[in-house]
Order: sequence, then structure tokens, then C-alpha cells
Amino acid sequence: MPQSDLVKNAVGRMVPCKIDQKSFRPFAGAFASPPEKDKRRVGPKPGTILHPGQDCLVPTIRDALERIELQNGQTLSFHHHFREGDRVLNLVMAEIAAMGIKDLTLAPSSLYSVHEPLIEHIKNGVVTRIEGGSARGKVGRAISRGLMEQPITIRSHGGRVRAIERGDLHIDAAFIGAPCADAIGNCNGVKGPSACGPLAYSLADAIYSEKTVVITDYMEDTPVIPISISQEYVGTVVKIDDIGDPAQIASNTLRITKDPVNLNIARNAVKVIEASEAFHDGIRFQTGAGGISLAVTKFLGERMEKCGIRANFGMGGTTEHMVKLMEKGILDKILTIQAFDQYAIESLMRDYNHIEVSAGFYANPHNRGTAVNLLDVVVLGATEVDLNFNVNVNTHSDGLLQYPTGGHSVTAAGAKLTIITAPLLRSRIPVVVDDVVVVSTPGETVDVLVTDHGIAVNPRRQDLIDRLKDARVPLKSIEQLRDIAYGITGKPQKPSFKDRIVALIEYRDGTLIDVLRELEPAGNGSAGYEPVQG
Amino acid sequence: MPQSDLVKNAVGRMVPCKIDQKSFRPFAGAFASPPEKDKRRVGPKPGTILHPGQDCLVPTIRDALERIELQNGQTLSFHHHFREGDRVLNLVMAEIAAMGIKDLTLAPSSLYSVHEPLIEHIKNGVVTRIEGGSARGKVGRAISRGLMEQPITIRSHGGRVRAIERGDLHIDAAFIGAPCADAIGNCNGVKGPSACGPLAYSLADAIYSEKTVVITDYMEDTPVIPISISQEYVGTVVKIDDIGDPAQIASNTLRITKDPVNLNIARNAVKVIEASEAFHDGIRFQTGAGGISLAVTKFLGERMEKCGIRANFGMGGTTEHMVKLMEKGILDKILTIQAFDQYAIESLMRDYNHIEVSAGFYANPHNRGTAVNLLDVVVLGATEVDLNFNVNVNTHSDGLLQYPTGGHSVTAAGAKLTIITAPLLRSRIPVVVDDVVVVSTPGETVDVLVTDHGIAVNPRRQDLIDRLKDARVPLKSIEQLRDIAYGITGKPQKPSFKDRIVALIEYRDGTLIDVLRELEPAGNGSAGYEPVQG
Repeated sequence: MPQSDLVKNAVGRMVPCKIDQKSFRPFAGAFASPPEKDKRRVGPKPGTILHPGQDCLVPTIRDALERIELQNGQTLSFHHHFREGDRVLNLVMAEIAAMGIKDLTLAPSSLYSVHEPLIEHIKNGVVTRIEGGSARGKVGRAISRGLMEQPITIRSHGGRVRAIERGDLHIDAAFIGAPCADAIGNCNGVKGPSACGPLAYSLADAIYSEKTVVITDYMEDTPVIPISISQEYVGTVVKIDDIGDPAQIASNTLRITKDPVNLNIARNAVKVIEASEAFHDGIRFQTGAGGISLAVTKFLGERMEKCGIRANFGMGGTTEHMVKLMEKGILDKILTIQAFDQYAIESLMRDYNHIEVSAGFYANPHNRGTAVNLLDVVVLGATEVDLNFNVNVNTHSDGLLQYPTGGHSVTAAGAKLTIITAPLLRSRIPVVVDDVVVVSTPGETVDVLVTDHGIAVNPRRQDLIDRLKDARVPLKSIEQLRDIAYGITGKPQKPSFKDRIVALIEYRDGTLIDVLRELEPAGNGSAGYEPVQG
Repeated sequence: MPQSDLVKNAVGRMVPCKIDQKSFRPFAGAFASPPEKDKRRVGPKPGTILHPGQDCLVPTIRDALERIELQNGQTLSFHHHFREGDRVLNLVMAEIAAMGIKDLTLAPSSLYSVHEPLIEHIKNGVVTRIEGGSARGKVGRAISRGLMEQPITIRSHGGRVRAIERGDLHIDAAFIGAPCADAIGNCNGVKGPSACGPLAYSLADAIYSEKTVVITDYMEDTPVIPISISQEYVGTVVKIDDIGDPAQIASNTLRITKDPVNLNIARNAVKVIEASEAFHDGIRFQTGAGGISLAVTKFLGERMEKCGIRANFGMGGTTEHMVKLMEKGILDKILTIQAFDQYAIESLMRDYNHIEVSAGFYANPHNRGTAVNLLDVVVLGATEVDLNFNVNVNTHSDGLLQYPTGGHSVTAAGAKLTIITAPLLRSRIPVVVDDVVVVSTPGETVDVLVTDHGIAVNPRRQDLIDRLKDARVPLKSIEQLRDIAYGITGKPQKPSFKDRIVALIEYRDGTLIDVLRELEPAGNGSAGYEPVQG
């Protein structure tokens, strides 16, 4: 790709203005690209009159594919609420491959290692494009090494909904794995053997796609209650034997880190919160499900209890630890996009003030109101942070695509206080670096980095620096943290990339915040990294 | 209007093809007009980025009107979930009149007698068109007498949503009275001093209108739970002192008829149900909230209990009587569009299997699935029934517009068994007549008429006639019922109409099923009729 096609964006990254016939806008700042004034959303497709008494249940995936008249070249979407336990995508794609359909675009909300069979479908020309969402695990790494002709697009949870609603991502057929469904398409994720919690990632697909197919392994009488996705949007229901592996869908207990280093990071993150304006009665927070995040949830709860303050809501990927705060009476409400363990799923059924919210409600910046904008504080992870506080969550320093953006950039933009927690080194590789491989989240939306070697506050937040001076936390500049890291390991060698772009990193507003290029064959896959987020 | 502009539709009514520049399609049969194949719904309007921490609360209605930049000639919508207790419409319209804004189109889901001040706004040119929903009570009667230059459009609950979604009814600003709201627009109808139950009629307006304003008198922390209408769609919230009169919003107890004649009608209706295919384990029914309907609910429950069958769901306007069936364990679920009494409202909060559903979910025929199509049986009222079983619910024989179509024509079309209950005479005026004043619901969707002088089955339902032969019910032909009525009162005199059309009766699919014309001044208003439905 000739350099003349590239333009420098607001985080200093060179991004293309055009690839083939498709135009791109460069990232211009976290709040610089509101929706076009007179542009409407895509008009949802009406149904055909389903005559009285009719339903839309078919017996096999093949029947469903024939009913929706799937064609070469169409765009299909799948969702990641079953995580590594998902069987839906592989079953549907195997059937499609067997039917000889080719040249499809896949629009998953995320891909996991379990979706490795997709690599063969890509090699065989069944799938020729991926418009995410994201690709992680084995598929992501294969893409980094040049698996696909066309770059894939990586979008945050909110950005993906925005793209669907605006028509940037047009979906011909949405396939929604639903743990509990009825014969006219009402469904939820909280009942049945493959219960996963919310179906939050699928709602926009259900509404805006040309055809919507629900795939279930557990049916109840019409209508199922609760109704997460409504019959209004679903045209086909398939009942198969098994849509997921429960053991891989929800963990029984996600464990808080036992590593004293990580526990210390969590404690310091809570000290930062406590010293900030965010720590008040009615605090609204998102802490996440990683090992450090769980410890933050626990310690924050302890401090709230001690100080006699109640939180208004906790949000995001919900765990037993969050639910227990509600049970203790120090957290009023929980808004869940993803439920990570059995306890959280059951709470969704049981607790009136624990509700499922869609990815759009959660994070679409072009709503009239978006929930991330309500957050007082969010605690997030990072694989790399640069000197401008730009955060990479998509690759490690090795340059291999492995993780999604998920809720990272959207909550960072929305929350009043955005804290990144990370060890300063991972597998003897610095996390704070001069330059990140890709920018997933712009530094202007990141306030604090808490590491095991000190805490750096974004100089844009002098107010916070002032407040933290009395908080007995080890304040450092980001440059100091980098120097400590480089002092231990030496300056890390950057991976070598070819020119070819393999992934477009789209910001929540639809602009390009960065691109990832194909890794030179010499580049090694990473091993032993702790996953950054769910 | 010259006769050449009129065409005879499938129920034999002369309807216009065009008025001014607007075209109309004649009713062609209950299932003859599916959605146009490649026509999409209207694209909802995106919001502007609400920056972190911002809300959209303004202190007065005037502020809200200024914020949405209300203009002359725009279309405004209001809803009827507060029934005769509504203060929202009058307050907003008074403010608009004071601002000197003119030539507005009103798009209410329904109008009640409490909205009488509207008559002045119409006379003063503030409101020049009404696109319903419907107009009932004093406003309806004034329209019948020629109040408006332009005919109003009357739509069923499902037809109104269809019209909004297709763009036939374009709304510039939706005003939603919400008993409980938060500062970024999430709201529900189940909490607060003006609790009314669902906000089901407003959802389509919230999603598809250019601007959405929530008006409340009771606020909770963000987000309110439950969320009936989401922040995603609401751009402005106003907190005022008082949005409704609780005594007029929900009744404390709706009473079952004590009239032995009506009780007998109810018993016979239940006998018809019991003799039909509809009476089985898992029956799904809608019975309504009129005096006879409540008795049907009670008697049907008694028969189900006796026969050991359970209902899958009850639907529609919900009352204590319906909730008690659920509490007894003979009804599994309730789907509520409107809650008529305090007991039903509280049950919505308390009972997991009692859920609020939107008017679109309930009855929009152009959904991929619509709930009315699931009904085994619906029991409805009528002001007039003709020899083809066509039903009028909009006027009495006096020709005055008084009642909405509501859920009448949509449930009649959807249910496997549609029963009309009515006394054969009201105030010594026949209900069964040669010709109804207007057709609200086509006879092809009506199966049985149960009166105090006998039961007539639509000849299209020979299967039902066969089943009823053994049911010990007084079967008659519809002509026999007419003869009995006319034998008592003489053939009723028809009201005299002018040529001018005052109301267009739109079927759920958007076609014109009938028109109502301006009443000659000699025509008398009716008095003492029992309202037919809520």
C-alpha cells in the first residue's frame, strides 16, 4: 500500500484513508466525531405476516440456512456469550462449508480459540473477510501472520453496535445462540443447560440484520420469560442437541489473584479511587473479571463498607464478587453485559436490581444516552501503555493479535476516572514502552496507570495528582516507570512488520485509531501472558 | 368529495383512494396486505454524544419545548396509559399554545374526555390534524360534529406501531408521561405516585420519533429499574409536580357485572370456549376489562380449575381478576400492555412471570412475530355487529365517534377463536343490525357473537357450529338475532351524515377499512351506553 494513502491521526498513528473502494476517517480525538447531524440509523427490516398459530421453528441448521436463502458473498454474525464453550459458530460454518457457499464476511462480536476450525474455512475461501468485534486466540494469531487477504476490522462493544446501527456493518444473517428460546423466537440466556447470562451482544444484530436465526438446545413454552431478544426480530428458530459446553461458558468461581505483587497493585488502585472524587455515596463503577480486577472489586467493597458509602451500580462483566457486594447491601444495582460465573447468572434470575443490558445500552456512543458515560470509575487492564498513556489491549509487545478491545476504549472514554492496572513487566517484557504496537484506547481517556513499581497519573489530570499527594501512594511519572522497566530488561526489541495491514482498529465513533500489520515470519508467538480481559 | 375518488373495499365500504396529496389503499382482506417486500422500517435517529457525566434533565415543560426546538407544523405524540387521569397532554398543549406555536398534528395513542381542552386548541389553530391512535369521549364527539377541517386517522394499537415504524406516521416529538424516570431518560410506569403499569404504547414513539421527551413527577437514581423505555432513545427529561391523577389512572377494583343478563352472556361465552378447540392445557387467551369480560375471566378460570387445565398466558389489559388466576396456579404467565387496577400494577413489580410487553410486540402485524397471533381465544365487545359479522367499536348506532379500535381488530385477526359478547339491545337500540355505522373489525376475523338472545356462529366456521351442537347453547343465525332485535324495537333509524369524511378507520395493515362522515346537526349524542373496551 503506497504511503500516500496514509494520514497521521490524533494519536500520531498512520492510518489509511481508503482501502479499495472503502473510505476511512482518521481518529480525531475521543469526543471529536459525533454522529452526522442528519444521518439516520438503518431502518430495521419488517417481518412478513406470520399467520395466526404459525411458528418459525425448523429442525436443523441446514433447514435454517435454506429458509434464510443464504447466498455467496453475504455477511453473517455470531456472538461470544458462550466464550470458549461456543459450539454454534463451528456447527453453522461447517454446514455452510458443506453446502459449498463461499466468499462470506464474518461479523463476530468476538472469536475465541474454540473457533480454530474457522482457519480452514478461511483457507478454503468460505470466509474471505472478518468484520468484528474482534478475533482473539489462535484465529487472531493466524491473522497476524497473514492468514487473510483482507484486513479484519476490530471494534469495541459499543463501536460494533454503532457500526451496525449506522449501516457501516451490514449483516445479512445474524445467528444467535440462545440457551432458552421458544418457537417464535423469544429467547434469553439465563435458563437451560447452556445458560450464559445476558444475550447483550446479539441485540443489535437481531434488530438490524436482514434475517435473524436463533439456535437453541432448550425450549420453553411461548413466550419464554424473561425475553432478552424478542419475537419481533427473529424469523427462524432451530433446536439442536447442544449449543455449548457449560464448563467453558461460565466458570464456577473466578479466582482473585493470590500473587502478592498483583494484590498490591489492586490495593493501590483502590487507594487511588478512594483519594479521587469518584469515591462518594452513589459511586458507579466497573471493575472487570481479571485476577487483579477481582481483587479491586473486593478491596473497593471493603473500603466502601468501612467508610459507610453505598455504590449506585456496578457494571460490565459480572462475577460472584460483584453480586456479593449487592447482597451485602453496599451496592444497589448491577448492570450486566456478560456474566462470567454461575453465581452471576443465577443472580440475574433472582435479583430484581440485577439487570441485563445490551451492548448498545452499555456503550454505543451515538445513543441519546450511553451507560459508560455514567461511570465514576473504571478499572481496566493493558498489554502495553506508552508515554502518552495510549493503551494497547489487542496485542502484546510481540505484535500478535490476541485480545479484543471489548469494553476498554468505551469505558475509558465514558468514566470520570479511568485506571489501568498492570504489572510493569510481563514475562520480563516491559508493559510501559516508548511506543505501543497498536493504540486500542487513546491516552486522553486514561487517567492513571497503577503498576507494581509505582503509579503514574496522566499530566492532564493535575487535579488528581494534587489529591494523590496525600494518599501515601508511590507516585511516579510515566517516563520514570518506563525507565525502571527498561533498566531491568533493557529496551525491548520491537517486532518486525511487513507493510500489509492485517487489522484495522476502529475507535468507538467509527474512526481509525490504528492499524496492525502482518508480522514478519521471524516474530514469535507469545506464551504465558495473563489474559487482559474477557 | 366527488364519488369518483371512492372505491369499494373488501368489506363493501366506499373509501377514498386519495385525499389532497395523500394516497390510501383500500382494505383487501385481513391477511391480504403483507409488508412491501423491500421496504425497510424508518431508521431511528441517533443521539448526539452526551458527554460523560452529563444528563438531559430540564426543569420545566417550556425548557423542554425550547430544547427540542418545537416548530409550527410539526407532529407531536402522546399516550393514554394514564387514561382519564392524564395531565401531561393538557399541560404540554397549554404551554405550546402560550408559546404561539400553530398548525400542529397530534398523534395520540388515544384521547380521553380529560383532553377536552384540546377542542379549544383545535378551534384556535394550534392543532390542525389528528393522526391516532384514536379520539374518544368529548373530543371524539366534537370531531363527529365537524370540529376539524381534516379527517382524523384511527388506528389499532398494532396498526399505530406499524404506521410509525413504516414512516406513515412520522413523529417529530414524542412526549412520554413516565411515573418513574431518571435524569438520562430511563423510565418505567410501575413506581411513583402516578404508577400506571406498562409504558407499552410509547415505546415505538421513543425509538422512531425525531425527539423524545420524558415527563415525570418522580425520579430515582440512574438507572431506574425496571427500564421500560431506555436512555438510548430519550433526549430530554422534565420533572414537574404532577403528571396524573392516581384515582383516575388505575381503579382500585374493576367490578364484574352484576346484571344477570350480562352474567348469562359471560357464561355462554365460556361454554363456547369450552366446546371449542381452544380449551386445552396451555390455552392462551385475552379477555379484557369490561364488565362482561371480567365475568368471562372469572368463569373461564373456574372451568379451567374444574377441568384441571392450566393456561399458558393471559394477555391484554390486565386486571386483578387475571392476576388472581396466576396466583391460583391455573395461569402461568401474563403479558400486559395496560394495567387497569392497582393490583395488576403491583403484580407487574412482584411476579416474575407477569411481564410488560410493548404495543408493537403485542400487535404489530409486520413484526417477524406478533403476540396476538399466539392467542387461542379472544373475547371482545361491540357496539354494533352486522350480518357479515363485521364489528363496529368506534361509534354507537348514533354515529358519534366515541371509542378507540384499541386491540380489537388486531386480536380478532390473530386469535384462533374470536368471540364478541354484547347484549342484543342497548338502551332499546339493536346491536345486531343490517349495516354497522363503520366497520372497525372485519367479519372474516370474527367467529362467534354471544348475546343474551342467542349465539350466532360465523358460517365460515362450520367446524365450530358442529362442535357447539352438543354444547347446550342457544345457537341462532345472525339473521335470527337481527330479527329478534328488530322485532322488539322496530328497524332502527340510521343517523344522517353529510358527505364530509371526519375520520379514516385504518386496518392494522395500513389499508382503509372504513370512513366516518360528519353527523348532520340533527343527530343526537348517545347517553347511558356501557363503554365497550379500555
